[in-house]
Amino acid sequence: MPALDADACRRLVAAAPVGRLATLRRDGTPRLVPITYVLVDGVVCSVVDEVKPKTSTRLARLGDVARDPRAALLVDRYAADWAQLWWVRIDGRAAVHEAGGLRDRALDALCAKYPPYAAARPDGVVLVLEPTAWKGWTAATGAPLAGGPVTGT
Amino acid sequence: MPALDADACRRLVAAAPVGRLATLRRDGTPRLVPITYVLVDGVVCSVVDEVKPKTSTRLARLGDVARDPRAALLVDRYAADWAQLWWVRIDGRAAVHEAGGLRDRALDALCAKYPPYAAARPDGVVLVLEPTAWKGWTAATGAPLAGGPVTGT
Repeated sequence: MPALDADACRRLVAAAPVGRLATLRRDGTPRLVPITYVLVDGVVCSVVDEVKPKTSTRLARLGDVARDPRAALLVDRYAADWAQLWWVRIDGRAAVHEAGGLRDRALDALCAKYPPYAAARPDGVVLVLEPTAWKGWTAATGAPLAGGPVTGT
Repeated sequence: MPALDADACRRLVAAAPVGRLATLRRDGTPRLVPITYVLVDGVVCSVVDEVKPKTSTRLARLGDVARDPRAALLVDRYAADWAQLWWVRIDGRAAVHEAGGLRDRALDALCAKYPPYAAARPDGVVLVLEPTAWKGWTAATGAPLAGGPVTGT
């Protein structure tokens, strides 16, 4: 598959509604979870709501990145027509922002991108993935890639 | 989000067309890639075609699991209506099957599930993920979950 250039990667990731985040558990195994996110200032931001003691699945990824910041995000398009496939992988380092300007901008951007967030603004901590490497591939050749439709599995 | 029982997890994973696989690179970082797959005999099977020397991205995951078999697959549904979200995570151990009955059954099942494979039967090695843990969540309450539509990102 042909590689996607950096601009195409950023455009596709910015437009897509969902990505799959991998963090590393204490034992080094990959922990996968789907996330909504925004690209702000070149970093990937997602909000982790409902962080109460023992809210296990959401807290887990925060514990992971506190122990080991290495993480990755995959954004891709699946289609029955395999000529329309593409994927973008971001490897990077993650950190938790409990407050601050980047968190505020991320929450604003999340509300602008996702109507459910606009209807009920989230107030959790923001997980920030700072990319160290972008890599993208597409099955398409020639015509510019469409970002959508981007719903579904 | 409510947990999904084992039957629901298997049903949703069997029906979905795409999942995201995480393997572990030599340095322990998670390597993410989207895959097509089938469930055969309770294990997740995907085919790795075009394994020629230095075909980097496909060979990479095979090298990963040869060094460290720990891997995971995430299958999920995204929808603009967040009440329709679900995800299923399989953690397990991966192995490469270059031949044998399981590989043959996997290739048959891949051809039955995916028309492009039926049109051009793959002949590569099969990556087999043997689950050690299934975990699933859904935002839906009450009514049975629909598996589709399952195209798109």
